[in-house]
Amino acid sequence: MQHPYLPHGLFVTFEGPEGSGKSTQIGLLEKHLCELGYEVLVTREPGGTPMGEELRRILMELRNEKVAPESELLLFGASRAQHMCNVILPHLEKGGVVLCDRFADSTTAYQGYARKLNMDFIQRMHELTLYGRWPDLTLLLDISVDESERRTQQRDGDTPVDRFASENRAFHFAVREGFLDLARHNQKRFRVISADLPVDDVAARIREEVSHVLR
Amino acid sequence: MQHPYLPHGLFVTFEGPEGSGKSTQIGLLEKHLCELGYEVLVTREPGGTPMGEELRRILMELRNEKVAPESELLLFGASRAQHMCNVILPHLEKGGVVLCDRFADSTTAYQGYARKLNMDFIQRMHELTLYGRWPDLTLLLDISVDESERRTQQRDGDTPVDRFASENRAFHFAVREGFLDLARHNQKRFRVISADLPVDDVAARIREEVSHVLR
Repeated sequence: MQHPYLPHGLFVTFEGPEGSGKSTQIGLLEKHLCELGYEVLVTREPGGTPMGEELRRILMELRNEKVAPESELLLFGASRAQHMCNVILPHLEKGGVVLCDRFADSTTAYQGYARKLNMDFIQRMHELTLYGRWPDLTLLLDISVDESERRTQQRDGDTPVDRFASENRAFHFAVREGFLDLARHNQKRFRVISADLPVDDVAARIREEVSHVLR
Repeated sequence: MQHPYLPHGLFVTFEGPEGSGKSTQIGLLEKHLCELGYEVLVTREPGGTPMGEELRRILMELRNEKVAPESELLLFGASRAQHMCNVILPHLEKGGVVLCDRFADSTTAYQGYARKLNMDFIQRMHELTLYGRWPDLTLLLDISVDESERRTQQRDGDTPVDRFASENRAFHFAVREGFLDLARHNQKRFRVISADLPVDDVAARIREEVSHVLR
C-alpha cells in the first residue's frame, strides 16, 4: 500500500487529566488514520522505550521514600529525550504519524504549574529534550476536576493507583489551570476539546482538527 | 560520645577516574574521622538512595538500546536531587561529615567535557539539584588514562564492566582534562592529588587537606 506523503511526518500529542478519555480517543484516531493509509505509531509518556518504561514505573509507583520534585522533573525529561531520539524522531523522519499520550506540556502543567518548579529551567529542559521538534498539534481533552475524579473512581475504586492520582484537589486544579494557560499561550499548536461531550463527538472534532493540519 | 561541633556539617567529594583509589581513600578517611569523633556518612553517586540505586543500575549497565546523552545527563541529575534532599542535606544539617564518591563535577566532566552537552544547561541543572550546597572540599585523585586502564584491567579483566568503562580512550582523555580544568577554575574548593603516590602518602595528603577545612 502506498502511504500518503508527509515530508516531516505528523506529531500529535494528547493532554488532559486522568479520565478525560485520551486512550479511547487515541485508539479511534489511530484506526481512522490507518484506514487513510498513514503509518501510525501510538506511544506514551513517561515511557515509550525500554528505559522510559523503567522510569515510568519509578515515577508512578507509590514509593517508600519521598520523591524530590526536582528528581521527578528530571526523570520525565530523561524519559522524553530517550523517546524522542530512539522512537519519535525516527518515525517522523520516515514520514509517519506519531500519536503520543502525554508529552512536554504535561511536564509544564504538573511540575511547573502544580509543583511550582522553575519555569525557565523547564523551558530549557524542553529545548534539550525535544531537539527542536515540538508537536504539530496538541489536543487538550478538558474536563473539570470533579468529573475527572468521578470517572477515575468509577474505573479504579477509591484507592489511588499512582503517585499523581494520590495528590490533593488543589494540585489537580493547578494542573488544569496550567493546561488551559498553555493552550491560551500556544493557540497555533493547541486545541481545547471538551471531554464532557459524547465519545463520538469528541472523535469527530479530533478528526477535523487533524485533517486541518494534514492539509 | 560528644561529637565535635560542625554548625553546617562538612561535605567532601571524591572525583577521579576508575582505578584512582577513591574507594580505598574514602574508607581510610572515614576511619580517621570516626576516630576523631565525627559522625561520618559514606555515600556515592549515582546512587545513595533507593531511587538513586535503581537509576545507577539503569545508567551503568550495558543496555540493548542506545542511551541518549541528554537522558544520561538528566538521570544523573535526578539521582543527585534525591540524594541531596533525602540523605546529604539532612546529615549536614545534623552537623555530620558526608564523604561522597563522585558528585556534580563528574557530571560536568563526563557529560559536559567528554559528551560535549551544553555547559550552561549543566550549570543550571547543578543549581537545581544542589539546593545551593556545593561541597566544602573536592579531592581529585588524578592519574593518567594509561594508568587508569592498567589498574582497572588488572581488577576487572579485559571486559568493560559498565557503559562508561566501555567508552574509547578519547572519551577518557576528555574526562581527565575536564576534571583538571574544573580544578583550575575552582581552586578554593578543589585539591588535585596525584594518585600515583603510595596509598599511605595519598591518605596523609587527604587528611591534611581535610584538617585545613575543619579548622
